[in-house]
Amino acid sequence: MGIHGGDIYRNEVKLDFSVNVNPLGTPESVVAALHGAVERCGNYPDMKAEKLKRAVSSQLNVPEEYLLFGNGASELFMAVVHGIKPEKTVIPVPSFYGYEYAAKAAGGEIIYYEMKRENSFCPGEDIDAVLAEDVQLLFLANPNNPVGNLLGREALLALLQHCQEKGIYVVLDESFIEFCGVRFSMLEEIETLDRLILIRTFTKIFSIPGVRLGYLICSNPETRMKIAAQLPEWNLSGFAQEAGCVCAGQREFIMETENYINTERQLLEKELKKKGFQVFPSCANFIMFYSDEALYEKLLEKGILIRDCRNFRGLGKGFYRIAVKTRKENEILLEAIGDIRG
Amino acid sequence: MGIHGGDIYRNEVKLDFSVNVNPLGTPESVVAALHGAVERCGNYPDMKAEKLKRAVSSQLNVPEEYLLFGNGASELFMAVVHGIKPEKTVIPVPSFYGYEYAAKAAGGEIIYYEMKRENSFCPGEDIDAVLAEDVQLLFLANPNNPVGNLLGREALLALLQHCQEKGIYVVLDESFIEFCGVRFSMLEEIETLDRLILIRTFTKIFSIPGVRLGYLICSNPETRMKIAAQLPEWNLSGFAQEAGCVCAGQREFIMETENYINTERQLLEKELKKKGFQVFPSCANFIMFYSDEALYEKLLEKGILIRDCRNFRGLGKGFYRIAVKTRKENEILLEAIGDIRG
Repeated sequence: MGIHGGDIYRNEVKLDFSVNVNPLGTPESVVAALHGAVERCGNYPDMKAEKLKRAVSSQLNVPEEYLLFGNGASELFMAVVHGIKPEKTVIPVPSFYGYEYAAKAAGGEIIYYEMKRENSFCPGEDIDAVLAEDVQLLFLANPNNPVGNLLGREALLALLQHCQEKGIYVVLDESFIEFCGVRFSMLEEIETLDRLILIRTFTKIFSIPGVRLGYLICSNPETRMKIAAQLPEWNLSGFAQEAGCVCAGQREFIMETENYINTERQLLEKELKKKGFQVFPSCANFIMFYSDEALYEKLLEKGILIRDCRNFRGLGKGFYRIAVKTRKENEILLEAIGDIRG
Repeated sequence: MGIHGGDIYRNEVKLDFSVNVNPLGTPESVVAALHGAVERCGNYPDMKAEKLKRAVSSQLNVPEEYLLFGNGASELFMAVVHGIKPEKTVIPVPSFYGYEYAAKAAGGEIIYYEMKRENSFCPGEDIDAVLAEDVQLLFLANPNNPVGNLLGREALLALLQHCQEKGIYVVLDESFIEFCGVRFSMLEEIETLDRLILIRTFTKIFSIPGVRLGYLICSNPETRMKIAAQLPEWNLSGFAQEAGCVCAGQREFIMETENYINTERQLLEKELKKKGFQVFPSCANFIMFYSDEALYEKLLEKGILIRDCRNFRGLGKGFYRIAVKTRKENEILLEAIGDIRG
């Protein structure tokens, strides 16, 4: 059991429910673009990523200059902390471990704000007191990982406005927003909230974790300049740039995914509840639930890898996260769980 | 004219002599590995890069734990400066711009030590005085870029030992060492000189700049830990890992390249001298020479891109760098230069 899911390299795995990528797989056109990129791997990739920038800018309807691309979202987290150099960073937990990893790399103090189970793992009103003038950076995921919940728009907007007023940068990680519906994004606030740094990735929605491509959107030119100076030169592979250009046009695939996930997530939730687990509300392509059973070990014996969440700060023993996969895969998982529950 | 060579995205180029990759191209087996990686891009790459580590460790005959891999050498430069946090960094010039870029990202003072034309652009004895106790980091390229010269083994060893005694970390960039012959590497000193951080890349010798893969070798566990903590999680794509494993076995290809380059470089040097240019001695797969002619512009008119070195710190107008390419390409270049010289 590692700090992240998906360790198929040191486990015997037939079905991986620990990793949250799109169960519909990678669009054929994206795979074709990757094969094409192999033929051009003898060329240096474009340092300025002009084509990619144009494609994503037009997809999102934001100015090209608002965009910075990274070798996965994880590189962007690192560049942000090195660019901003926060003395104090707030990380609400439980959440993605990568924020903590990045914040530690930059040094400075980390304040973990606990989102409580009884509050559905959402920030309470007391978070405003933690986000005081001496804080420079807040990491926030929407939907959150591993819980899968979306913050209410009003509450989130109030939080972002509070940070804007206090001069606190907010890294809002929307890595899974496409699975919920892009209408839940805070993208349209980017113009008025210039402390907001929105992070997106191609990894999850296009199921290309092997490629490494993420981007950030920020309307403040000085902030962008500071972050850009922390990105290595030629950070984007030719594969990432060529695949990214094709991904940027896949509106229908994203819609289709949202619908598919919605149906399958409801089925999984219903069945898990039937089996007596406490299931936490999710809008994303994964579900967190609670069980007294040693599910991780017992499922791994059957060749099924799920995410044991006990090493998430703010959680503990008994919390599990599963991806929403294809109908057939989901049924195999439910059957295996059924066998274990007897 | 950019800060680096190879900008084929904003120039009309038929022949690119500005980029220094292997003219023999990418081994077929590496291309095949990349196509294979496309089929697996839906899997997260191995965070620990175990297979790749094993392959390179066995190729170099160094312990696996001495190795750290990066998304290109440029990512490793950034991780080194953030890990070491030098207050004072020495960069001998002229040399690769990437060192300056990285050092600036970490902040701290940069001292540019001028390697003089009359000293064949090698460090003089006065460099010891610059490398005093208050310096924490030295960047050094061997062979140097854009000059192409190798430092004499004794002089280099004395310099490394001086730094070891003063507690100065040395990033020794051997990105082009395979073209000169790996016997010129300082790899065997890695055990006794634990301030030495050797950097290598797959980009140049295997002609895969689109893939992004470099590595460093350092025998000091604390130094490695500091640097590793500055590398983003999942920094290596699946493409880099799968191609790298195949590259690690290509001894014959490297030998063949060294011989090919040696023959072609001598031919180019001879012909350039015949045309009256001052040619600087090179052991690498590129050549620097001096000319009063506006060669960059005139060759670009003919669709040939060379590297105008005027924006290299420590050089200036009139210095040009060309790659050593295939016989046929080299002949086209020489003919084009002949036309210009009339």
